[in-house]
Amino acid sequence: MGSLKEANKIEGVATQPLKEITDSLGSVLHMLRNDSPLFNKFGEIYFSETNPKTIKAWKLHKKITQNIAVPIGKIRLVIYDNRPTSSTHGNIAEYQIGRYSNYYLIHIPPMLWYGFQSLENRKSLIVNCTDLPHDPSESLLLPLDSGEIPFQWDLTK
Amino acid sequence: MGSLKEANKIEGVATQPLKEITDSLGSVLHMLRNDSPLFNKFGEIYFSETNPKTIKAWKLHKKITQNIAVPIGKIRLVIYDNRPTSSTHGNIAEYQIGRYSNYYLIHIPPMLWYGFQSLENRKSLIVNCTDLPHDPSESLLLPLDSGEIPFQWDLTK
Repeated sequence: MGSLKEANKIEGVATQPLKEITDSLGSVLHMLRNDSPLFNKFGEIYFSETNPKTIKAWKLHKKITQNIAVPIGKIRLVIYDNRPTSSTHGNIAEYQIGRYSNYYLIHIPPMLWYGFQSLENRKSLIVNCTDLPHDPSESLLLPLDSGEIPFQWDLTK
Repeated sequence: MGSLKEANKIEGVATQPLKEITDSLGSVLHMLRNDSPLFNKFGEIYFSETNPKTIKAWKLHKKITQNIAVPIGKIRLVIYDNRPTSSTHGNIAEYQIGRYSNYYLIHIPPMLWYGFQSLENRKSLIVNCTDLPHDPSESLLLPLDSGEIPFQWDLTK
C-alpha cells in the first residue's frame, strides 16, 4: 500500500487505506462497513466508469455525502473547497487513488466541487456509496474550463 | 438488456434488471438505492474479483442477505437450495450476469449455497452489498467437488 500525497487538506474530507486480500482465485477488496466512522447512513450505491484518458468534471452535491473507492484502474480525484465559512476555503486537494498501490476510500462531504480523470489506458471504475439516493435537483455542474475553479487539468496525462 | 434465463426458481431469490446510462466519457451504472424493495439495511459493501476462467465455490451465509451486481466482466452464478422447509428445496438456479447484455441485481437470502465462475478472459468484479458486515463465524464452505451439491461445474468454459 502506497501512501496518499495530499498537497492541501480540505475540512471534512477523510481518507482511509482499504484492504486488499489477495488470493490465487481473485482478490477480495474491502470498501465500507456500517461500523466505520466514515459511514453515516445508506442512500445509494452506484458506479461511474471513466473511459481511458477521460475527465469527468466539475460537479457539486448540495446535500449528499460520498464515499468513493476505485477497485479497477486508477484516477486523479480533485476537490475544490469554495465553502465561504470553511477553514480550508480556497484549497484544492488532489488524490491519485486506485489499484494497486493506492487503494483508498475518500469521504467527501457536500458543497465541495470535485472531478476525476482516468489515469490508465483502460476504463476505471469509481464506486460511490452515498448517504442519500440520486436526486437530479441536488447537484450543480460546471464545465471543465469555466475558469471559476483554480485548477488546470493536464489533458496530456 | 438481455433477459435472464432461469432453469429453476429458488424461494426468496429475486432478480432485477439494472440501468446502464451510457455516456461518451464513461457509463453510469445503477446498483441499489435505499428505496428499493430489495434493500433491507446496510451492513457492508465489498468486491470479489474473479480471475479469468476461475471458480469460487461453494459458500453459504447463515445470516447475511446479499445483493450482487457485476459491473465488470461476466459470471455464472449458481445457487443451490438445501433448506429443509423451502418450497423450492433441492433446486439449482443458474444465472449468467454481467456486462453488457445481462446487467442484473441478484438478491440472495441466507442459508443458500452459492458459487460463481468467471466467463471471460479478463477479471470479473462482483460487488456485494450485504445487510450485515462480514463475520467469519457466519459462513460455511464446501469444496467444489464435495459431491454434496448436485451441480457439475463446466471447467472448460
